[in-house]
Amino acid sequence: MSKKNAVIVFSGGMDSTTLLYDIVASKEFNKIYAISFNYGQNHTKELVVAKKTCEKLRVEQKIVDVSFLGKELLFGSSLTTGADNIPEGDYNAENMKSTVVPNRNMILLSLSAGYAISIGATVLFYGAHKGDHEIYPDCRFEFVEKMKQVLAICDWSEIELRAPYLDFDKGDIAIRGKELNVDYALTWTCYKGGEKACGKCGSCVERLEAFEKAGYSDSVEYEEEK
Amino acid sequence: MSKKNAVIVFSGGMDSTTLLYDIVASKEFNKIYAISFNYGQNHTKELVVAKKTCEKLRVEQKIVDVSFLGKELLFGSSLTTGADNIPEGDYNAENMKSTVVPNRNMILLSLSAGYAISIGATVLFYGAHKGDHEIYPDCRFEFVEKMKQVLAICDWSEIELRAPYLDFDKGDIAIRGKELNVDYALTWTCYKGGEKACGKCGSCVERLEAFEKAGYSDSVEYEEEK
Repeated sequence: MSKKNAVIVFSGGMDSTTLLYDIVASKEFNKIYAISFNYGQNHTKELVVAKKTCEKLRVEQKIVDVSFLGKELLFGSSLTTGADNIPEGDYNAENMKSTVVPNRNMILLSLSAGYAISIGATVLFYGAHKGDHEIYPDCRFEFVEKMKQVLAICDWSEIELRAPYLDFDKGDIAIRGKELNVDYALTWTCYKGGEKACGKCGSCVERLEAFEKAGYSDSVEYEEEK
Repeated sequence: MSKKNAVIVFSGGMDSTTLLYDIVASKEFNKIYAISFNYGQNHTKELVVAKKTCEKLRVEQKIVDVSFLGKELLFGSSLTTGADNIPEGDYNAENMKSTVVPNRNMILLSLSAGYAISIGATVLFYGAHKGDHEIYPDCRFEFVEKMKQVLAICDWSEIELRAPYLDFDKGDIAIRGKELNVDYALTWTCYKGGEKACGKCGSCVERLEAFEKAGYSDSVEYEEEK
């Protein structure tokens, strides 16, 4: 039987980058396509590093401009309306909920599935992990489970959604990344758009905790001493 | 208890137009928002008439430009690549499958749900009907059922998907439209972009059959004698 083709929703953050290394290492697929979205987020730097990772791994990357989401639809999210209002501190803090883009994951997964169908890929990968569950309703186990069910029947042939890191926290992902020799210098997590990562926003804090749990140093540069 | 707000996926075709009249007549909602998509279809005339219907019914309309779908993602659909290749004849014919935009309904529903969340609407209407089932995988009963389940948990508060015409064929919709006194001159169904409806494409043929079943005449003008 010939190998399947796969699409990965690829942000250039550490989760989806680790997942891409994992998929490449599996040798399960004939061809792997990375789909990346520019949805008007402040941290477009993640797109720059995403491109470099795809080049390094020789994976075809599709960048889709969905910046209309910020302009047209998704009012009130600080991810799409300038960096000043990005809350600092822990992801668990109530104020991090302002970074939620309404229904973002369903939108990006449905677009990715459309892309997969159009190029004949039948497996769709998505790097949701345990740490996202409390903040983002569309990162919960039951959301992913229901998305699997609807993606299985959205076309005449099944699109298989896989989210293999759903039981991982971000520390587990960093541990897996070490095994896979992931180049984390080519990832971007900070929600602010600076030259170096701020080290203070919820996203940076969570990333630094992940490397601490994994027991090695992050190779991304930070503005201040860690 | 205060009334809910509703969003309707509103194409300006006869199905969603009838549905909009139905929702307005129900008086169930505090506010109704119509969301319309320009996804690079040839028949943008449906957007023009959609606007007129919204004005007539005093419903707020949001038009979202998703034409990147045609350019970026959804190769190989004749709906987005010029009118020459629109197949003529019956919807049931195999060649009508070329009008399928991959995963279109999930994409439009997920965007509409994001819009609903952003404006505080909790009910989402969608005019899928029985006649679409054979052609479009994402119009099947089980697809709508699974979409209901995932939309119910995509945000912290439930988005309720309603597709009240799922058991209707297009003739039933035309019958319902007569009861509601729908102005079908302000609807557009033809897949070609002409001044008048072609009367020949699968979409026109299906529409004409619907009015025949309902026992009255379509108020849209056709190029040739019916």
